[in-house]
Amino acid sequence: MKRIIECVPNFSEGRNPEKIEKIVQPFRGREGVKLLDYQRDEDHNRCVVTVVGEPEPLKTAVIEAMQAAIVAIDMRSHKGQHPRMGAVDVVPFIPVKGVAMSETVELSRQVAEAAARKFKLPVFLYEESATAAHRRNLAEVRKGQFEGMPEKIKQPEWMPDFGPAEVHPSAGVTAVGARMPLVAYNVNLGTADLEIANDIARKIRHLSGGLRFCKALGIELKDRGIVQVSINMTDYTKTALYHVFELIRIEARRWGVPVIGSEIVGLVPMGALIDTAAYYLQLENFKTEQVLESRIYE
Amino acid sequence: MKRIIECVPNFSEGRNPEKIEKIVQPFRGREGVKLLDYQRDEDHNRCVVTVVGEPEPLKTAVIEAMQAAIVAIDMRSHKGQHPRMGAVDVVPFIPVKGVAMSETVELSRQVAEAAARKFKLPVFLYEESATAAHRRNLAEVRKGQFEGMPEKIKQPEWMPDFGPAEVHPSAGVTAVGARMPLVAYNVNLGTADLEIANDIARKIRHLSGGLRFCKALGIELKDRGIVQVSINMTDYTKTALYHVFELIRIEARRWGVPVIGSEIVGLVPMGALIDTAAYYLQLENFKTEQVLESRIYE
Repeated sequence: MKRIIECVPNFSEGRNPEKIEKIVQPFRGREGVKLLDYQRDEDHNRCVVTVVGEPEPLKTAVIEAMQAAIVAIDMRSHKGQHPRMGAVDVVPFIPVKGVAMSETVELSRQVAEAAARKFKLPVFLYEESATAAHRRNLAEVRKGQFEGMPEKIKQPEWMPDFGPAEVHPSAGVTAVGARMPLVAYNVNLGTADLEIANDIARKIRHLSGGLRFCKALGIELKDRGIVQVSINMTDYTKTALYHVFELIRIEARRWGVPVIGSEIVGLVPMGALIDTAAYYLQLENFKTEQVLESRIYE
Repeated sequence: MKRIIECVPNFSEGRNPEKIEKIVQPFRGREGVKLLDYQRDEDHNRCVVTVVGEPEPLKTAVIEAMQAAIVAIDMRSHKGQHPRMGAVDVVPFIPVKGVAMSETVELSRQVAEAAARKFKLPVFLYEESATAAHRRNLAEVRKGQFEGMPEKIKQPEWMPDFGPAEVHPSAGVTAVGARMPLVAYNVNLGTADLEIANDIARKIRHLSGGLRFCKALGIELKDRGIVQVSINMTDYTKTALYHVFELIRIEARRWGVPVIGSEIVGLVPMGALIDTAAYYLQLENFKTEQVLESRIYE
């Protein structure tokens, strides 16, 4: 695969393995598409799929999976802890290799338009694909959830980007968009004082004056007797992992608290780590093509 | 490719592109084998090929390339600046993915044995494949070069591991072995004083009491007006890049000289950089499988 986009669709079914199999089936054994992972959560009653592919075959496969989910899931009887508004709740596309964000946005629009037309489904564009500032944030789009959507989408500012201004009876509403890869990154502090983690989180996150592509909050790790600054890096190409780490180190010093470790949860693009190594080693003129593995697989 | 070995054969022909094409031909368009690079050097009169593959197809391709080189090259008329002892001068095999060093040694022995038998060629095993301590180091094996080999291999301690105890008239002698990937890593100092780079090189390298898998020497970068500690990391999995970097930083401090940068020359395995990022970020429990690209290509 020369050009790679990742897609992480979330479906509102986490309890019935047979239904989930039908939903992921379109991602299997297909030229130009690779299913990396899918995880179901019974409490959330939700399934998160991770798939990569070349743009065109990926698009076709995603639309087929959406169809399977719309056939299998009836939101009128859906219960689960996670906020949700549709059978296909959200479909983010992420540029991985040889693809610009603008192309990924265009792909997301094509999928949104095709799904709206095929399934008579109201679809919102969000994040980089959003058509208005108040629609960028998924939490804002989803507010009200499935049950509140019939009222919500009658308001002019919440008219869907594609499809009817009426909720699909069984499938609800879907959000489709393009975004950068998320890196879930946590930094552990040698203290049990949650207030310290919260204070540091406030200082480093974008919301309260910190780094542009950094969301953060303090949490307790009760079993280890420590606290953690729990971080979502929303664009590691612009806000570097080591910036977050070093700022936390500087702030922890104010409290006389040591940084005792950090962790990456789930997947991380190779570039985020190479960037970090290059900073600390003061590497001059390093190119990703110098990584042996990237040459083998190019 | 699930199991990958790299091979970096050196052939004693750097001037005739037609001959070089014949030599690399067996690495092209072959299932399970990928030619990454080949570079010829006219002064050295030598060509270095970088190829990866699954063990069996790689073995077949390497033996075919050796045959092409033995047909194309006559060492009796070979001149070049680089030390050399045969048409196929040296054939190192390097474990890259899903292959143990012991299997790579076994593969090198099979290639050595087959080539010796097929081409009536004396072959020495070196590095990890060596059958005696004094044969590990390639420079020791090659000492005397092509012209001195007829005398050398008559000595009992230099009896070839495979093939006749007589030099091949036109193809000389070949060394085959398994080794870890080399990382060529240089650290630049903010001074023009070569003695400082040499002093630091002496302190960090294995030869004079430093790190086990580190070779180093000081060199001048005249155009930049600085000096450099030029390093070969012979096993980055055991001697970490950041150990070398931090030791140089500590030693440079003694002279009041800043480390102004570093560089990686050529290819580097992804693991060497991930290891470095994981150290500086104090990453807990990080696994290579968390790198998105490694999942995509696995």
